[in-house]
Amino acid sequence: MRYGIIGTGAIGGYYGARLAQSGQEVHFLLHSDFDFVCEHGLQVDSCNGSFHIEKPNVYHTTKEMPPCDVVLVCLKSINNLLLKELLPPLLHDQTLVVLIQNGIGVEADVQAMFPGVSLAAGLAFICSAKTEPGRINHQCYGQINLGNYSCSDEALVQQVVDDFNAAGVKAGLVEYQQARWKKAVWNMPFNGMTVALNTRTDLLLKNPATRQLIREQMMEVIGAAQHLGVSGIDESFADLMIQMTDEMTPYSPSMKLDFDFHRPMEIHYLYTRPIEIAHEAGFRIPKLEMLEAELRFLSPNSE
Amino acid sequence: MRYGIIGTGAIGGYYGARLAQSGQEVHFLLHSDFDFVCEHGLQVDSCNGSFHIEKPNVYHTTKEMPPCDVVLVCLKSINNLLLKELLPPLLHDQTLVVLIQNGIGVEADVQAMFPGVSLAAGLAFICSAKTEPGRINHQCYGQINLGNYSCSDEALVQQVVDDFNAAGVKAGLVEYQQARWKKAVWNMPFNGMTVALNTRTDLLLKNPATRQLIREQMMEVIGAAQHLGVSGIDESFADLMIQMTDEMTPYSPSMKLDFDFHRPMEIHYLYTRPIEIAHEAGFRIPKLEMLEAELRFLSPNSE
Repeated sequence: MRYGIIGTGAIGGYYGARLAQSGQEVHFLLHSDFDFVCEHGLQVDSCNGSFHIEKPNVYHTTKEMPPCDVVLVCLKSINNLLLKELLPPLLHDQTLVVLIQNGIGVEADVQAMFPGVSLAAGLAFICSAKTEPGRINHQCYGQINLGNYSCSDEALVQQVVDDFNAAGVKAGLVEYQQARWKKAVWNMPFNGMTVALNTRTDLLLKNPATRQLIREQMMEVIGAAQHLGVSGIDESFADLMIQMTDEMTPYSPSMKLDFDFHRPMEIHYLYTRPIEIAHEAGFRIPKLEMLEAELRFLSPNSE
Repeated sequence: MRYGIIGTGAIGGYYGARLAQSGQEVHFLLHSDFDFVCEHGLQVDSCNGSFHIEKPNVYHTTKEMPPCDVVLVCLKSINNLLLKELLPPLLHDQTLVVLIQNGIGVEADVQAMFPGVSLAAGLAFICSAKTEPGRINHQCYGQINLGNYSCSDEALVQQVVDDFNAAGVKAGLVEYQQARWKKAVWNMPFNGMTVALNTRTDLLLKNPATRQLIREQMMEVIGAAQHLGVSGIDESFADLMIQMTDEMTPYSPSMKLDFDFHRPMEIHYLYTRPIEIAHEAGFRIPKLEMLEAELRFLSPNSE
């Protein structure tokens, strides 16, 4: 299988390097550190064992990349309009495009850009950062789940899951809608609230008022999912997410890191789209609507 | 008429001094600047004309004060438990106690402490600050409206209104429930949101996302009031409050000043009680519930 990685950052760099290390043919699109990686290769410092890819296939533009069987899109969702130009050179008739991105609604919007293309969602549970050029720091976790959105060749999606597992990355196949909404149950409260109150996950859960608020926001997401007919998410999942977070190391979600480093925040797919999708189906999630407004106030330059 | 002032700060100092200047007998309870006012009197710097009360009747404890016909309670509501001790020496059989305080539910709680006492709400629209000992800085506005809560002698309440007007303070008689809830329509969104987002009223209205949020929060208060059977508040009142705020000088509400100066915030009567009162009547105000939780997170030491 030939893999293409669009966005060789903390996520794309890690998963792509794992696949390359396991013997897959991987082609990396790089931006700022292209020259460095050409010369020095790609270093992965990982809690599961560090390694180095000496001569990765790296490119500065997708126009020079070959068509791939699988493309992992690891851009921030705020840059998805770029896919219009970036993606076509990598596509052949059967290419599977996996969107390893946060939020709700990314697949629908990318499908609208590329009506015939096979899409899957990639749901990554990973703490990883690109700390310097050509160097990925993978701190913990690392699992990736794939949810098939529009690929008629289910065996191909399963093959990607198998390739990940063979590369030492725990991977699974999940139901698309359920997986996206389950992830939103954690993402929507914690990403925004750590920004709005400039704090950490553990402190939000330590204060009784915000602990209850976080749970109510989770129940809004669960209520929306249930209202949309998504199966397999009920109140016990909120309790599980809170318990899991209680046991986690205090953690800055991706939106908090974006906020702290003055990068644009993914408000659109993390808040605006799920709020709209729920609203269009007749369900309101008022506390998350309020959180969206606070985030827009705090970041007037985000999309 | 003999007036007693409990809490000679920005509000009590201003209204008490105006009454004293107009010839009423006024007795002031002072705390930190008692010695200073004994020696130097009380200075009011006012947009409506400055003046000085040379020898005010000042006290360090209510035990030395005479029974009064009218007591103006101008404490922060967070200190209302102190009334149990402070108030009795000032009461005679017909004393009217006017609570010039923010929020919803203060009268009910004070009435429970003093079942037989006549109460009225005092709704002050005033920008005033105590900038140094014995000196009140009255910047603008100044109107006070009285709402009768439990005084069977309506003429007495009217007399207080007349005394204010005679003292150069614009005053009116209003329907108690309507007045308290109307004030909450402005107070609940703006007090908390200026704290939660560490900002000003004008910037909240300039950003389209928070402008809409403020309006939605106002509509929650209006919905609660309507649900409780309070008459005379509808959607047009939200538009009026937003228009009024658009035209105001950028302004820090009292809770924002408390937050900035690390004083406890009046979360209980501004948020917790109205949220509970609405909830008990079967009406939820989720965006204001969320705001309450954020305020409790930001001020763990508030009541």
